[in-house]
Amino acid sequence: MASVIASYSSYEFMRVSSPATHVAHVEMNRPLKLNAFSRAVWLEFGRVFRQLSEDADVRAVVLSGAGDRAFTAGLDVSAASSEGPLSGQGGGSDPARRAKALRGHIGEFQECISEMERCEKPVICVMHGIALGLAIDIACCADVRLAARDTRFAVKEVDIGLAADIGTLARLPKIVGSASWVKEVCMTARDFSAQEALQVGFVSRVHEDKAGAVAAALGMAARLAEKSPVAVQGTKELLGWGRDRSTAEALRYTAVWNSVALQAGDLPAALASVFTKKTPTFEKL
Amino acid sequence: MASVIASYSSYEFMRVSSPATHVAHVEMNRPLKLNAFSRAVWLEFGRVFRQLSEDADVRAVVLSGAGDRAFTAGLDVSAASSEGPLSGQGGGSDPARRAKALRGHIGEFQECISEMERCEKPVICVMHGIALGLAIDIACCADVRLAARDTRFAVKEVDIGLAADIGTLARLPKIVGSASWVKEVCMTARDFSAQEALQVGFVSRVHEDKAGAVAAALGMAARLAEKSPVAVQGTKELLGWGRDRSTAEALRYTAVWNSVALQAGDLPAALASVFTKKTPTFEKL
Amino acid sequence: MASVIASYSSYEFMRVSSPATHVAHVEMNRPLKLNAFSRAVWLEFGRVFRQLSEDADVRAVVLSGAGDRAFTAGLDVSAASSEGPLSGQGGGSDPARRAKALRGHIGEFQECISEMERCEKPVICVMHGIALGLAIDIACCADVRLAARDTRFAVKEVDIGLAADIGTLARLPKIVGSASWVKEVCMTARDFSAQEALQVGFVSRVHEDKAGAVAAALGMAARLAEKSPVAVQGTKELLGWGRDRSTAEALRYTAVWNSVALQAGDLPAALASVFTKKTPTFEKL
Amino acid sequence: MASVIASYSSYEFMRVSSPATHVAHVEMNRPLKLNAFSRAVWLEFGRVFRQLSEDADVRAVVLSGAGDRAFTAGLDVSAASSEGPLSGQGGGSDPARRAKALRGHIGEFQECISEMERCEKPVICVMHGIALGLAIDIACCADVRLAARDTRFAVKEVDIGLAADIGTLARLPKIVGSASWVKEVCMTARDFSAQEALQVGFVSRVHEDKAGAVAAALGMAARLAEKSPVAVQGTKELLGWGRDRSTAEALRYTAVWNSVALQAGDLPAALASVFTKKTPTFEKL
Amino acid sequence: MASVIASYSSYEFMRVSSPATHVAHVEMNRPLKLNAFSRAVWLEFGRVFRQLSEDADVRAVVLSGAGDRAFTAGLDVSAASSEGPLSGQGGGSDPARRAKALRGHIGEFQECISEMERCEKPVICVMHGIALGLAIDIACCADVRLAARDTRFAVKEVDIGLAADIGTLARLPKIVGSASWVKEVCMTARDFSAQEALQVGFVSRVHEDKAGAVAAALGMAARLAEKSPVAVQGTKELLGWGRDRSTAEALRYTAVWNSVALQAGDLPAALASVFTKKTPTFEKL
Amino acid sequence: MASVIASYSSYEFMRVSSPATHVAHVEMNRPLKLNAFSRAVWLEFGRVFRQLSEDADVRAVVLSGAGDRAFTAGLDVSAASSEGPLSGQGGGSDPARRAKALRGHIGEFQECISEMERCEKPVICVMHGIALGLAIDIACCADVRLAARDTRFAVKEVDIGLAADIGTLARLPKIVGSASWVKEVCMTARDFSAQEALQVGFVSRVHEDKAGAVAAALGMAARLAEKSPVAVQGTKELLGWGRDRSTAEALRYTAVWNSVALQAGDLPAALASVFTKKTPTFEKL
Repeated sequence: MASVIASYSSYEFMRVSSPATHVAHVEMNRPLKLNAFSRAVWLEFGRVFRQLSEDADVRAVVLSGAGDRAFTAGLDVSAASSEGPLSGQGGGSDPARRAKALRGHIGEFQECISEMERCEKPVICVMHGIALGLAIDIACCADVRLAARDTRFAVKEVDIGLAADIGTLARLPKIVGSASWVKEVCMTARDFSAQEALQVGFVSRVHEDKAGAVAAALGMAARLAEKSPVAVQGTKELLGWGRDRSTAEALRYTAVWNSVALQAGDLPAALASVFTKKTPTFEKL
Repeated sequence: MASVIASYSSYEFMRVSSPATHVAHVEMNRPLKLNAFSRAVWLEFGRVFRQLSEDADVRAVVLSGAGDRAFTAGLDVSAASSEGPLSGQGGGSDPARRAKALRGHIGEFQECISEMERCEKPVICVMHGIALGLAIDIACCADVRLAARDTRFAVKEVDIGLAADIGTLARLPKIVGSASWVKEVCMTARDFSAQEALQVGFVSRVHEDKAGAVAAALGMAARLAEKSPVAVQGTKELLGWGRDRSTAEALRYTAVWNSVALQAGDLPAALASVFTKKTPTFEKL
Repeated sequence: MASVIASYSSYEFMRVSSPATHVAHVEMNRPLKLNAFSRAVWLEFGRVFRQLSEDADVRAVVLSGAGDRAFTAGLDVSAASSEGPLSGQGGGSDPARRAKALRGHIGEFQECISEMERCEKPVICVMHGIALGLAIDIACCADVRLAARDTRFAVKEVDIGLAADIGTLARLPKIVGSASWVKEVCMTARDFSAQEALQVGFVSRVHEDKAGAVAAALGMAARLAEKSPVAVQGTKELLGWGRDRSTAEALRYTAVWNSVALQAGDLPAALASVFTKKTPTFEKL
Repeated sequence: MASVIASYSSYEFMRVSSPATHVAHVEMNRPLKLNAFSRAVWLEFGRVFRQLSEDADVRAVVLSGAGDRAFTAGLDVSAASSEGPLSGQGGGSDPARRAKALRGHIGEFQECISEMERCEKPVICVMHGIALGLAIDIACCADVRLAARDTRFAVKEVDIGLAADIGTLARLPKIVGSASWVKEVCMTARDFSAQEALQVGFVSRVHEDKAGAVAAALGMAARLAEKSPVAVQGTKELLGWGRDRSTAEALRYTAVWNSVALQAGDLPAALASVFTKKTPTFEKL
Repeated sequence: MASVIASYSSYEFMRVSSPATHVAHVEMNRPLKLNAFSRAVWLEFGRVFRQLSEDADVRAVVLSGAGDRAFTAGLDVSAASSEGPLSGQGGGSDPARRAKALRGHIGEFQECISEMERCEKPVICVMHGIALGLAIDIACCADVRLAARDTRFAVKEVDIGLAADIGTLARLPKIVGSASWVKEVCMTARDFSAQEALQVGFVSRVHEDKAGAVAAALGMAARLAEKSPVAVQGTKELLGWGRDRSTAEALRYTAVWNSVALQAGDLPAALASVFTKKTPTFEKL
Repeated sequence: MASVIASYSSYEFMRVSSPATHVAHVEMNRPLKLNAFSRAVWLEFGRVFRQLSEDADVRAVVLSGAGDRAFTAGLDVSAASSEGPLSGQGGGSDPARRAKALRGHIGEFQECISEMERCEKPVICVMHGIALGLAIDIACCADVRLAARDTRFAVKEVDIGLAADIGTLARLPKIVGSASWVKEVCMTARDFSAQEALQVGFVSRVHEDKAGAVAAALGMAARLAEKSPVAVQGTKELLGWGRDRSTAEALRYTAVWNSVALQAGDLPAALASVFTKKTPTFEKL
């Protein structure tokens, strides 16, 4: 996969490696800024996940932050203050015209982060160190979340005077069972620990440190990458469709989807391997 | 805020005080009846929350029951037996005509309780003592739920021969993660403890006694009241919208909402305070 | 109820008994095959729950697997390989025509399992021993889930090369609070224990062994069967409707539903029993 | 019904008469201002339709404008310029705070007009003379629309610099078949004639003049008022529910609704009248 | 197709013939009763359309009434008065228990009529003579409606004291553009003519008499039966799915559906025929 | 606007001119191929409408085909046969893998055409000459449709063996009132005339020839371009949102949208012009 990964070498803020077959590891790579996001960063973030989604060599993705200090500290506030519609410059002569610029700005930002959710391959997100504000918006777009014990989480936006608008408020309540907890952390902006994130089901497991969490994520990704991509990606698609729809609609879509997925070579290959006890191999998807 | 609170002095069953700046404390105040609800009570309940929603001096609300024995024992069964369509008097000469009266009755009752959910300010509900039947319908309309250790909870309606119809069955499954638990407590009508309520995520925290829980709620309310009302109320609005809609719809609504919310003075004021380390003050909303 | 149960004696794969008044116990009864499902089995499964739903003598249902080894091992893979569209025989001369056959096949299978969800009486599912693949699809259609300590759970479908299509992916995320956990177990196909199932809220309680879990389920069923069937079945209906709809739609439907349900004799009978302290009896429904 | 109508005598801008048994005729009664709407007018409009909805003596309603010149010229622009948030006075110190005031203002206005749609009795709207802007928002809330030949219609809002926000854009596309026509008249703000309104199905019939249209509407109302109120009001309810929901949801709601409506005395009374050829009488609803 | 049609010979109230290759003609066949529907009739109606849906030899269906006098006069009122829950016999000791019986009754009736909508082949409905009440519910489930000039249409239910509950109120507003017209005919129960049905778009064409309309329908069916069944049935499926869903959902479902439909042999066969000018033949579906 | 239009000069298949202030005229410009669409064409089509949407100098858009013979003949079948997944080359080793390629292909094609619907400025589509297949998908994305008398329309896809998948089946039923007509033309693939298109409301007006229709469209566009862009674009946005949502959701979104739109300078400017009788000018949006 080395040659493939070469095609990811042009990103400035996203470091992509392939520590195992069919596994891509994306690191938000701006450690001196605690991996904070300026517009250039989120545009790249969107692009890298679009590419990963279409790359038939990739079957599972791990996301983490570069460096020891932060997953990401969220929005790069100083950049936001000097560029774009939040800087207070330009953007229209009346509130309606400024609103149009702001809608465009927020919409673009949302789209870039949502690319990770739309990525057709499973994405495992490793949270560690500082994980504030946008960190939660991003994590909500992953499929599985793991955390290092030292992670400091917060839905921080209220403390800088705004309601979180890149996805946390739309997605977190559907990810975590306790609405009381969701509302509390979103409205108070208070920190919460990895242990608390585990208890409410936001993350699936807490590991001793970042290294341990990354290793666990890569291990899970490697196992996923060995399985039928028709089965794994179909599972992601159907869970995603079902989240926002009624059971009846989800069942019908499932039947239509599987009416062709079951014609893949993966089903007989996987069934055969059950009897032969050999690991099956599956074609690219 | 004293002068403001004066405007709440005319309620008979709702006692409203303001223990901290911009914080209102509502007590269901009919302790001799274990704070049970007759029609007069729920009409007042609706009115007080409509007023709180529109009152720009109020930024956070705490709800509890007056007295030591009960949050509320629920419907005032003896009042219901002697007035209104449940009393078996009047209400139409055939089942369809009685049904119309009952629909009107249930609809009005639902509307009054739903006013707490529609209140644009965060509402923290402190549960304690007896908390049966309607108590759960009410608590489901709050944003955050805290409990005293001695709370005795039950979705009690099945035991008086009816399915809960003031909101529990519509809201509880979206508030708590375990559908198996929800169905069990709703169908068996069995009691459950504060500890169990915590474990399933119905309440966010259990306190030693009512006093401790109220103090914690008032503390949380005071902290919320110090934050940007544009940010806090926007967060409540967007979480409420998102609960019943798809992610795509929630994201778009968020962008439209924030396209004007970000033009508030709150954002620069809050940002400035991050650097100056001073508590910002925010204008009324 | 003996005479009634006689009407269930013609099933080949479903054993139906009545261990308590108004309680039916259904056992998937193919223990030599670990209660695996061929097409004949799921057709019977649908039929038995349709009959139970319409049987006014039945007020609560318990489902378990016959024998000590398995709740169910899921799809009978060897049967699937030799009959029906998965066998690779017949089913159309091109992928679109095979897809039509597969849609019909999956749709029929979904319909049969969904009959348990549509059953108007509460269904308590006791999971024990092997509970793989289809076992989870089935359990997701129950109202309450209990487990024996030894249960071995897995959403196993990915390991045989397909996305689960009989309901797990549509229902599990609405049954369990942690989306991270749901995605992990659905994509990795890994085993999970009864303890883990309890922690995430998939099951309500873990019992020492199958016998203990069945006894607990039958006890709960007996208690449900003593309550007003108008109240219990209404509660099930309203929770089911609410799951897939907005709060506003659920509240309105509730008001319409209860506008006639409150005209039952159950409400005065139950209210009277509160005062007389006698167990009320309720008419058939 | 005379005594009943007396209870409508306190309205200032709404004249209510009862030209036939169980029929109410509401006239927007501010002819010197071409029946234009200030805030006081729309608050009354909401109140009168709430009262009509609850008044068991009323079974059908006709709405028209007082005087010869106008159904209504829409918003009272001069009043709007000197009061309320459109006047540019007060309303908050920044765009977000002004937006809150405007949301409240628009929401209240929408609610008042929507009361006509929510009115449980059929409403026949007679359009005549000038019918601009708000006239269309109002007409969209009626069940049946008739027009005088001279009616001058326009969705006029674009010409005063805003998108129509009291309901036209939400309802007109669901009332009229041609989306191309809807978009054209909403975006160009051009006038259209009664004949054109008939051709696209916005109105059901065009009459020679206002008198003829009112007479036709009162005749239709009188016929509706002779029919079973359970049947007529149920039909309105079910058409209203179905408009915004899927067929499956509408069918289920219909079955639940009629499960009690069919227990009315109206069904046997109406059936009997088919055989006896006598006009049945129906109890109040 | 003769042999195939033999399999339809056991119906008592439905006469099925095959006047052209792959075309089935269903006649509601109870002319002495004006083709009115008792329970036995609607159960057969459901069964025959289920069979037609699954019959790979059938590619298009025409529905009409037997005899010269009626498409159908609707519900067989005398049968309804002497059997089933409308007869006033049995059905429970209180309104809630009678409601349960009625829900079951209405639900079964709806299901049977909806089978025509669910039929995967296009259904052309020929309306003629008397077409009252249930006639409209049935016609709303067809794909295309043609009428003879003499047809007498009415949504008649209000005149027998109930709101139409077998589908007209759920479907008619989505079939016809003018909501004003729909509400008028549904609430007044007045007759309307074929010409009026054409003008509002309820029927596609009016023919001189029943014979002419049936001939036109059979001609259209024959043309449909010559086309690719993958294309025709896919078109029906996608239009049906889209009716109740947002554009975004419809587009995605369309892409998933066609991702396998385009792998049929029909596409190359049809394309080839464009060049060769020969009528293509398509395999069964 | 000349300088602006220069920025559109690089398109190969789309010719963009500006015949009036703030008006853009887009011509599909491949007349020798009857303006048929290969992949290169639809990619450009998407790009040009994205650019027009963001271009603050453009306030209204007209779309037509270049040349006298065709609006567009639809898909370029010969190009489709030699490139992309319809060519039968490549695209995966089994039906599931080919399906993935086809989903991607259809999805991209849909996205490009949908860009015209998403364009924030009103789009008037002039149909003329040949307008087959994709021509209808495209026209469904416009706001207003005009036609020349000679237009030959058909939803042609069934005749080449597939169900239309670029939007016709999702959008046409919401654009035209008669479902019977929609199903007939979509399933039979028959031609229909401009006159018929007018009668069912698919187009708003029929003009003598293409020149007349284009002139009328440009005139309408010029009038739209003189109006407040806040009002016109807001109207488009709100009609678009409302189409796929319930009335309640549309009303709320409208209130939020207008809470900032009403703060534009357009409202006072337009109001002032009503009194001064001068044409107002509005700032760019």
